[in-house]
Amino acid sequence: MQKIEHIGIAVKNLQESNSLFEKLLGRSHYKTEKVASEHVETSFFRTGQSKIELLQATHPDSAIAKYIEKYGEGVHHVAFAVTDIYAEMERLRKEGFRILNETPKKGADNKLVCFVHPKSANGVLVELCQEISD
Amino acid sequence: MQKIEHIGIAVKNLQESNSLFEKLLGRSHYKTEKVASEHVETSFFRTGQSKIELLQATHPDSAIAKYIEKYGEGVHHVAFAVTDIYAEMERLRKEGFRILNETPKKGADNKLVCFVHPKSANGVLVELCQEISD
Repeated sequence: MQKIEHIGIAVKNLQESNSLFEKLLGRSHYKTEKVASEHVETSFFRTGQSKIELLQATHPDSAIAKYIEKYGEGVHHVAFAVTDIYAEMERLRKEGFRILNETPKKGADNKLVCFVHPKSANGVLVELCQEISD
Repeated sequence: MQKIEHIGIAVKNLQESNSLFEKLLGRSHYKTEKVASEHVETSFFRTGQSKIELLQATHPDSAIAKYIEKYGEGVHHVAFAVTDIYAEMERLRKEGFRILNETPKKGADNKLVCFVHPKSANGVLVELCQEISD
């Protein structure tokens, strides 16, 4: 794990939250992206070498919609940058972590991603993400 | 806000969680610290230019004990580094954020800290922290 790549925050209304985080962080989001496969629309803010990713559900079946229904808005996941996601998944499986994906999948922001079940990580939904090289 | 200074994670058993996060992050914690005023014992891991802070309550009145009772273990707060905490508090108050401290207080890791109420920050308990110069 190289660094905190981003913190994912579940929000109800992306436009309102963009405005709120602009005020909080003192800077604008630099991009938005829809991830159709995950039924989410996202926006990104830079902070140091990490990012804040806001996530709004675009469908009631989205994990974000279900999260908000259960817990309300808030921190949804913490993502760490890795250089070799396959090796990290193998390493974590051997250490006893429950990986939610059989193989990495394409996530937002041009990344290969996988998730570690929060029950095996102190209640934290951990994402691993690796930049996809062009 | 310069960067994510740390992510604070509420845990029930610091020793067990130190072992878990060692496996997750692939590195050991580099220090532990008791903050008597907050009734917590903490440990810190480095990850890039940020830290992971694990927090265990040392008293049932601790905010961490109450958090775990209500939500279970998980991400408790997100802390951002600032260079002038007084100016940032003033700026955020003017932007309509609810600051939980009248004035900054001494937190863990040689920092002056204050908190923004999660109800005014999309469900995220936001900490501002400024390094105390010697």
